[in-house]
Amino acid sequence: MSSSDIFAGETIGTAVLILLGGGVCAAVTLKRSKALDAGWLAITFGWGFAVLTGAYIAHPSGAHLNPAVTIGLAMDGVTKWSDVPLYIGSQMLGAVIGATLVWVAYYGQFRAHLTDPEIVAETTGHEGIVDKSASPQAGPVLGVFSTGPEVRNVVQNLATEIIATAVLVLAILTQGLTKGLAVSGTGVLMTAFVVVGIGLSLGGPTGYAINPARDLGPRIVHALLPLPNKGGSDWGYAWIPVVGPLVGAALAAGIHKLAF
Amino acid sequence: MSSSDIFAGETIGTAVLILLGGGVCAAVTLKRSKALDAGWLAITFGWGFAVLTGAYIAHPSGAHLNPAVTIGLAMDGVTKWSDVPLYIGSQMLGAVIGATLVWVAYYGQFRAHLTDPEIVAETTGHEGIVDKSASPQAGPVLGVFSTGPEVRNVVQNLATEIIATAVLVLAILTQGLTKGLAVSGTGVLMTAFVVVGIGLSLGGPTGYAINPARDLGPRIVHALLPLPNKGGSDWGYAWIPVVGPLVGAALAAGIHKLAF
Amino acid sequence: MSSSDIFAGETIGTAVLILLGGGVCAAVTLKRSKALDAGWLAITFGWGFAVLTGAYIAHPSGAHLNPAVTIGLAMDGVTKWSDVPLYIGSQMLGAVIGATLVWVAYYGQFRAHLTDPEIVAETTGHEGIVDKSASPQAGPVLGVFSTGPEVRNVVQNLATEIIATAVLVLAILTQGLTKGLAVSGTGVLMTAFVVVGIGLSLGGPTGYAINPARDLGPRIVHALLPLPNKGGSDWGYAWIPVVGPLVGAALAAGIHKLAF
Amino acid sequence: MSSSDIFAGETIGTAVLILLGGGVCAAVTLKRSKALDAGWLAITFGWGFAVLTGAYIAHPSGAHLNPAVTIGLAMDGVTKWSDVPLYIGSQMLGAVIGATLVWVAYYGQFRAHLTDPEIVAETTGHEGIVDKSASPQAGPVLGVFSTGPEVRNVVQNLATEIIATAVLVLAILTQGLTKGLAVSGTGVLMTAFVVVGIGLSLGGPTGYAINPARDLGPRIVHALLPLPNKGGSDWGYAWIPVVGPLVGAALAAGIHKLAF
Repeated sequence: MSSSDIFAGETIGTAVLILLGGGVCAAVTLKRSKALDAGWLAITFGWGFAVLTGAYIAHPSGAHLNPAVTIGLAMDGVTKWSDVPLYIGSQMLGAVIGATLVWVAYYGQFRAHLTDPEIVAETTGHEGIVDKSASPQAGPVLGVFSTGPEVRNVVQNLATEIIATAVLVLAILTQGLTKGLAVSGTGVLMTAFVVVGIGLSLGGPTGYAINPARDLGPRIVHALLPLPNKGGSDWGYAWIPVVGPLVGAALAAGIHKLAF
Repeated sequence: MSSSDIFAGETIGTAVLILLGGGVCAAVTLKRSKALDAGWLAITFGWGFAVLTGAYIAHPSGAHLNPAVTIGLAMDGVTKWSDVPLYIGSQMLGAVIGATLVWVAYYGQFRAHLTDPEIVAETTGHEGIVDKSASPQAGPVLGVFSTGPEVRNVVQNLATEIIATAVLVLAILTQGLTKGLAVSGTGVLMTAFVVVGIGLSLGGPTGYAINPARDLGPRIVHALLPLPNKGGSDWGYAWIPVVGPLVGAALAAGIHKLAF
Repeated sequence: MSSSDIFAGETIGTAVLILLGGGVCAAVTLKRSKALDAGWLAITFGWGFAVLTGAYIAHPSGAHLNPAVTIGLAMDGVTKWSDVPLYIGSQMLGAVIGATLVWVAYYGQFRAHLTDPEIVAETTGHEGIVDKSASPQAGPVLGVFSTGPEVRNVVQNLATEIIATAVLVLAILTQGLTKGLAVSGTGVLMTAFVVVGIGLSLGGPTGYAINPARDLGPRIVHALLPLPNKGGSDWGYAWIPVVGPLVGAALAAGIHKLAF
Repeated sequence: MSSSDIFAGETIGTAVLILLGGGVCAAVTLKRSKALDAGWLAITFGWGFAVLTGAYIAHPSGAHLNPAVTIGLAMDGVTKWSDVPLYIGSQMLGAVIGATLVWVAYYGQFRAHLTDPEIVAETTGHEGIVDKSASPQAGPVLGVFSTGPEVRNVVQNLATEIIATAVLVLAILTQGLTKGLAVSGTGVLMTAFVVVGIGLSLGGPTGYAINPARDLGPRIVHALLPLPNKGGSDWGYAWIPVVGPLVGAALAAGIHKLAF
C-alpha cells in the first residue's frame, strides 16, 4: 500500500466517518433539527452507516479509520509497524476535518440550540444563560463531538471501552482484513452492522468511543470552535476513550493469536 | 448503453424512487395513515429502500436516478457527456410520474388531511381554514413532495446540501459504478445504506434533497395538482436543492480525481 | 422444478411468511406482548424479515410465496402456466397453516386481549363487551390476520394495492428470478428490503396486502377460529387485496416486457 | 473440524453473542444507560447483530453458538454426534463468560438501578426496598440474563419456543450450513436477519430464548453474582427455554428431511 493511498484513504474516510457520526448526534440532539429526538436506534444506525460510508470510500487504504484497528492489525502482522504513524496521523487529521464539517452542516442548529432565547428559555426554564458551566444545552453540544459516561467511574468506563473495542477488533481480525473481506462490499456491510451492534449493546454506559481518533479529534475541535455558551470540553475524561480502545485492541490481538 | 435503456431505466427507476420516497413522507406525516408519526428513522429507511428498489429496477441504465450522480460520473469519465441530457430528462420525467403516483396512492389521506373538518379543527384549533398560507396542514403536504430547511439560511442550507451530496457521489465514484459494483446486488444495497446514513446524519437541517430531480420534479407536481388548501410551493427555496447537489457532485469528482 | 419441490417449498415457505408476518402484527398490537406498541417500523421490518426467512427456506421452489409473483413470473415466461395452480394452491395452504400457528404462538395474548376484564375495561372504558361489533379490541385482532383500509374508498384502496404490487413484481422481474439472483442470498436480502420499503412507503392507506394468499388465507382462519369477541372478518373488503395485487402483477409484467 | 477450533470458536463466539445480547437488554432496561427505553426494535436488532458478530468471530467452528442448532445439524448429518458434547459444553462456557462480561460492562448501571435511593424511590414509589421479591427493579435485571413469559402458561410458552426455534433451525438447515453459506459473509448476515425477524414476530410472548445456552448459562450467572436486591432467578421457568428449543430443532430436522 502506497503512502499516498494510506494518507488519502484514511484522511478522507475518517473525515466522512466523523462527519456522519457526529452528524447523527447533532441531528438527534440539537434543537431545530428534523431528526430531533429520533432516539438511540437512529444514533446507532447512523454511526454504523457512517462506518459503512467511510470504509466504502477509504478502501484504497484498507479502511482502518481507527487507531485501535490499526494497532490490532499491526500486532496481527497485517499492517506494517512502519506505516502505523501515517495511519494514525491521517485518522486524526480526518477526524478534525469531519468534526469541523459537522459544525458547518449544522451551523444554524448549533446557533439556535445555544443562543435562541426561546429555546434557551424552554430548556433552562429561564431566559438567558447566567452560568455557562450549568447550561443544560452544553451537554448535547459536547456530545456531538465526544463521548462521556452516564455513571462516572474510571474502572467501569475503562472496562466498557476495552470490552467493546475488543469485540470490534476481534471481528475485524477473525473474518475481516486478513481475508480481504472487510474491504469488499460484504465485509464493509458486516463491519458496519458489527458497529451498530456494539452501539446498541455496549453503548449505554459510555457512548462507545471504541476509537481514539473518533473521540480525541472532535474534542480538540470542540475546544477550538467559537461556539457561544459551549461549556468545557471535559478533558478529565479524554484519556479513557484513548487508552481503553488501545488496550481493547491489544487484548483482541492476543485472544486472536491464542485462539485461532 | 442504448438510448432506450437509459430512457426506460432512468424514467421507471426514478419514478419508483420518488413514489416510495414521497410515499414514506406521506405515510409518516399525513393524517389517516397507518404509519402516522412513525418518525425520522422510518423516513430515512424509507428513502434508502426507495433508492434500493429504484436502482434494482433501473439496472439496465446504470441506475443513476439523480442528475448529481450523472454529472459526477460524467466528470469522472464513466458516463458520456452526450448521454447526460437524456439521463437528466428521463430522471425529471420519472420524478414527475412518481410524485403523481404518490398522490394517487395517498388520495384519501391528502383529502382527509387537508379538508376533513374534524382533522382540520384538531390541527388548527379552529374549524375551517381562513388563511391558506397560515394552514398548518400545508407544511406536511409540501413536505411529501419537496424539501425545506428548518433554519432558513442560504449559506448554511447550500453548504449542507453540498456536503451531503459530496459524500453520496464520493461513495459512488470510489467504490461504485467504476467497478461495476453499484449495479450488482451488493452495490445497490451499499448505496441504499449510504443514503440511509446521509439521511440520518445530514438530513436534520434541510431534509437532504441531494438530488435535483428528487426536489424539482415533485415541486412542479405540487404546484399543478388540484389539492385544496395546499398553500404555496416555496419556489424561493427551490434553487438550493438544485444548485447544492450539483456543486457537491462536482466537488466529489474533484476530490476523487485528486485523491485516488 | 419438480411438483414436490413446488408443493413443499411454497407451502412451508408461505407458512413461515405468514407465521412471522402475522406474528409481528400480534406482537405489536396485542396486550400482554413484550413488543406492544413497538410501532410501524417494527411491523414493516417484521414483514420484510418474514419474506427473507420464508424465501430462504423455500428456495427449492423458487420462493414465490405470493400468487401475484407467480402470475407475474408466468406472464414473463419464467414459470410454466401449468405449474401455476399448484403454486397458488400451496401458497393458500401455507397461509392457512401460518395464520393458525400465529394463533398457537400468541394464544395467551389473544385470550388476554379479548377477554381479560381489566384489559377490556381499560380499552373500552367499561367492563364487559356488550356489542361485539363495537368492540375496540376486535380491530387489532383482525389486523393480525388480514389487511384493512384507513380511509375506505374502493378506487383508492384498489389503486394503492395495484401500485404497491406493481413495484414488488417489477423489482422481482427486472433483477430477480430471471437472473437466478432472487433465490441467492443477496437476492433474498434485496427482495426483503424491497418489501420493507413498500411497507414503509405505501403501507399507510391499506396495510399493503400485495399478496392475495397473505390476506385471504388468514382471513379464512380468522372466520373459523373460536376466538371470543372477535367480531366480523370484513368480507366486504376481502376482494380488494386479491384483485389489486393480481392487477398490479399483470401491470408490472406488461411494463417489464415493454421497457426492457 | 479440529477440537480446538470447535472449543475456541464456540466459546468465544457464544461469549460475544451473550455479551452483546445481554448487553442490549441492559442498555434498554437499566437506569443510567444512554439507551434507556430505546424499545423492542433496539432489542431485536441488538440480538440479531449479536448473532452476526458472534458468528463472524466463530467461523472456524461453523458458528453454531446454540445447542439447538448443533442438535439440528447433527440430526441432519452435518455435524458428527461425537462432536456434540464439545459443542454444547463450549457454548455453555461461552454463555457464562458473556453474561459475566455484561455485568462488568454495565456495573454502574446495575448498581444504580438496584441501589440508588433516588432511582429506587422513583421506581417503587417509596424509598428503600422492603420486600426483595416484590422489587420492581428485579424484573429488568433478571431480563438482562434470562427470558420469561408475559402470560405464564406452560403449554403456550413451550409451543412458542418450539415454533420459533423450528423456524430458526429450518432456515439454517435449508439454505445454511449445508451449503457453506452460513459461515460466509452473506450467510451470517441472512441468519442475523432471520433472528431479528424471529424476535420481532415471535418474541412477544416469551422473549424468544430459542437457544438453551443463551438462557441457562446467564441464569446461572444471575444466581451466582453478588447483585444487591436482585430477587430470585425464576428456576421454575428455566426448563422451558431448554426443552422448547431442543424439541423445535428436532421438529425442524424432521420437516427438513421429509420435505426437501
